[in-house]
Amino acid sequence: MREVCFGIDVGGTTVKLGLVSQDGELLEKREFPSIRDPDAMMDHIADHMNQVMEHFPDCACVGAGVGVPGPVMEESIVRGCTNLGWGDVNVARGLGHRTSLPIRVSNDANLAAMGEMWRGGGQGCKNLVLLTVGTGIGGGIICDGHILSGSMGGGGEVGHIPTSFHPEWRCSCGNYGCLELTASARGIIQAARQFSPFKDQAATTAKDVFDAAQEGNETARQIIHQAGSALGEAAAVLACVLNPELFLIGGGVSAAGHALLDPIENTFREKVFPPCGQARFDKAQLGNNAGILGGAALFFYQP
Amino acid sequence: MREVCFGIDVGGTTVKLGLVSQDGELLEKREFPSIRDPDAMMDHIADHMNQVMEHFPDCACVGAGVGVPGPVMEESIVRGCTNLGWGDVNVARGLGHRTSLPIRVSNDANLAAMGEMWRGGGQGCKNLVLLTVGTGIGGGIICDGHILSGSMGGGGEVGHIPTSFHPEWRCSCGNYGCLELTASARGIIQAARQFSPFKDQAATTAKDVFDAAQEGNETARQIIHQAGSALGEAAAVLACVLNPELFLIGGGVSAAGHALLDPIENTFREKVFPPCGQARFDKAQLGNNAGILGGAALFFYQP
Repeated sequence: MREVCFGIDVGGTTVKLGLVSQDGELLEKREFPSIRDPDAMMDHIADHMNQVMEHFPDCACVGAGVGVPGPVMEESIVRGCTNLGWGDVNVARGLGHRTSLPIRVSNDANLAAMGEMWRGGGQGCKNLVLLTVGTGIGGGIICDGHILSGSMGGGGEVGHIPTSFHPEWRCSCGNYGCLELTASARGIIQAARQFSPFKDQAATTAKDVFDAAQEGNETARQIIHQAGSALGEAAAVLACVLNPELFLIGGGVSAAGHALLDPIENTFREKVFPPCGQARFDKAQLGNNAGILGGAALFFYQP
Repeated sequence: MREVCFGIDVGGTTVKLGLVSQDGELLEKREFPSIRDPDAMMDHIADHMNQVMEHFPDCACVGAGVGVPGPVMEESIVRGCTNLGWGDVNVARGLGHRTSLPIRVSNDANLAAMGEMWRGGGQGCKNLVLLTVGTGIGGGIICDGHILSGSMGGGGEVGHIPTSFHPEWRCSCGNYGCLELTASARGIIQAARQFSPFKDQAATTAKDVFDAAQEGNETARQIIHQAGSALGEAAAVLACVLNPELFLIGGGVSAAGHALLDPIENTFREKVFPPCGQARFDKAQLGNNAGILGGAALFFYQP
């Protein structure tokens, strides 16, 4: 019997659920709205899993790897998800009861990094960092083929590494100068709003800023350059702590392409502790499927 | 037959070699000068191992864990030790040939952290950072019970995390403002030399600065306070990346006691990303035996 497993990415607005083969093929994918009540959410996920399995009667499901947007302990308990309004929820037990399957749970950013290592831009690497640059900045750290989750599931919170940019801007975490303030979509928009033409625009998006930069707007260019430089500074710090082989840049802001990637890499080369400077930079490859494949990697990837 | 193993800490000036029981008892310890030729060094270490084993005829030796002052790959090959003038040396193969024992090799700072986890200040923890503050600053990182060594053995080089102090001072690594410039013994001495009474003293040591601080010299106090604050800033960065449960402070500079430890912890509490702020701080406990016990931990510790 062919072995398969589920990868499930529980986000703040939608759940992405996929059935994945042992070699990383996505056999069926579903997407449905998230529910704020954890029990109702787990009922709903379990229903979808059962429905999907009915389409694959000759496959044996070995388990489900689940990503959640919060810190996770012991591959089981999420310690609060702000985006979902959850407190402590034992997702492994809850989904395990409902499906009789082994369930492994991880933080969504970490799981995306697993997915990229297994079937995306990180194939062949066992030490990598995925920087997901979207509304905020998430980090997924893989050391020697394993997710680094830390003592309380709070590892990889790289958006709160301080950089030399905007030391006067206060982060929602209470500190000043966090990476996220300069390099996230939110930070890029906030910086742009101080200047024309963005200050007169009702709703500026990060994409507006990328487009303006591409059309030659010097302020927009500088803002993206600064975002990249801040990411490069943070990557240099990460390199002397973790010595990864590869940094992958994902998330919506990575759509800025070379305008962002070049200053990341240039600043990194300038600031890194030289013995840790061998790391490569690349774009993440799996997009929205990274979490699903990362969930499956918890069962099928052998470090 | 009682199982034992060797822990061997190869330093720039001396080798510390110990035979260790399964429960972490140091049965015999030797210390002898390091040799710059790697083959002669390994001959010499193997001779000592054989001599020690003759004293324990009713023990079975299961291997040797060896710490070296350089980056180590695959628990075997040290990629250059500046302090010993070594290039690439396959210590696992070299000592394995000479002793017919399984040999596991690691960076000395990482091994000291293993030792502290197994039998020192980190007992009961699986996620900790040992900051060894001496002439320079070394870091040993343990994640989920395992050494974090990174892709090329360069993990844990925490002395090169930038801090907000002395941004104009250039580090030997080529960068500016590295932690080591402010918080190492070398940095403390350099800062003190700019002021009386130290600028008129032929040879100032870090201990002179600690003593002056204790006698009420305000400049000396500020220098140590600044060293502690820089360590606290770096610890805050490490916390959001690694989320450790515990920071242990070791090395000669930790002798400054509360004058150093208090500003470390205060600055950490002020600057840390709050969800990663639970970490405790303590002094390392094993002193010069940390590396020996860490070497034995590679065989006897079960995460």
